[in-house]
Amino acid sequence: MKILVVGASGTLGRAVAQHLGERHQVITAGRNSGEHRVDLRDDASVGALFAATGRIDAIVSAAGSVHFGPLDGMTAAQFDAGLQDKLLGQVRLALIGQHHLQDGGSITLTTGILAEQPIRQGANATAVNAAVEGFVRAAACELPRGLRINAVSPTVLSEAWHAYADFFPGFEPVSAARAALAFQRSIEGVQTGQVYKVW
Amino acid sequence: MKILVVGASGTLGRAVAQHLGERHQVITAGRNSGEHRVDLRDDASVGALFAATGRIDAIVSAAGSVHFGPLDGMTAAQFDAGLQDKLLGQVRLALIGQHHLQDGGSITLTTGILAEQPIRQGANATAVNAAVEGFVRAAACELPRGLRINAVSPTVLSEAWHAYADFFPGFEPVSAARAALAFQRSIEGVQTGQVYKVW
Repeated sequence: MKILVVGASGTLGRAVAQHLGERHQVITAGRNSGEHRVDLRDDASVGALFAATGRIDAIVSAAGSVHFGPLDGMTAAQFDAGLQDKLLGQVRLALIGQHHLQDGGSITLTTGILAEQPIRQGANATAVNAAVEGFVRAAACELPRGLRINAVSPTVLSEAWHAYADFFPGFEPVSAARAALAFQRSIEGVQTGQVYKVW
Repeated sequence: MKILVVGASGTLGRAVAQHLGERHQVITAGRNSGEHRVDLRDDASVGALFAATGRIDAIVSAAGSVHFGPLDGMTAAQFDAGLQDKLLGQVRLALIGQHHLQDGGSITLTTGILAEQPIRQGANATAVNAAVEGFVRAAACELPRGLRINAVSPTVLSEAWHAYADFFPGFEPVSAARAALAFQRSIEGVQTGQVYKVW
């Protein structure tokens, strides 16, 4: 398959691109690196990406940031930053990308354990991840031509544990390589509208 | 209790204001009607609302619209309209409102059955409602002073059935008066981080 991986320079994206690259043709893209540069906040940039890749078999997003901060000082503008980036950015990739997939192709987005398991300062993360999962749940019912859409929800990654351990007390990290398996399940499997939890 | 109901002129909001008004002092607010005018898309407008109400015991939102339309023609801008209105509007009310609640006060937001049960053309609705529920789940863990936050998730309302029946095949509508009971449960009850499903 010809697979586009957006966010391929991040910890998760690198592991996904490497794992999928063992069996597939992987095209990498990212905000600041990769074979193609793309800004998921911009329709024209995402359109240009697909114009460059041509029709593909699978779209993977391992991109997007959210706002972390105490609830009692959180502003709507900070909350919106996460909406625009990890939520609407991934949704934009899916909305535009659906028209550039081969029949039977797939879209796999990234959420995270915080969708279900809140942590301190994580209200934006929980909302954003839950929204992406909601989008996947609903979009799966409408996609034509055998197209599928799923999400992968990893817990905190071992590779990022040194930076995030204090925010995830008692959480058990997983390797990015293990999380990458779930993307393969989504792409090579038959399910749609699923959330593959890696935790 | 002194209870602020935002969106009090809508089908649901009217029923909630009426039901709560039997036992409490209800202050109504809305975009175009009510005792106070408020634009939930604007920090200053929401701030002015609470400056006018003074400290209150409960905040209720029955406000917010989402985008309905086919997935294959949906744009990111259309999707963002729902994010800005029903999602970020309610989140903004909660973020600012938390500082104007008496100890032990509560916030109750509105989601809907589409959070879990997608319909055609409802991808934005599912994402937005799921995000509001995610916010509630996480914010409940951080609110101080005994403050609580919940969501009420009604199915389609009997009063709106004539307009929406074609989009909800086989769904069983409920009256706004029945949905209003769930707001009472949230406000007068003890739970937090809950989604009260009225379906």
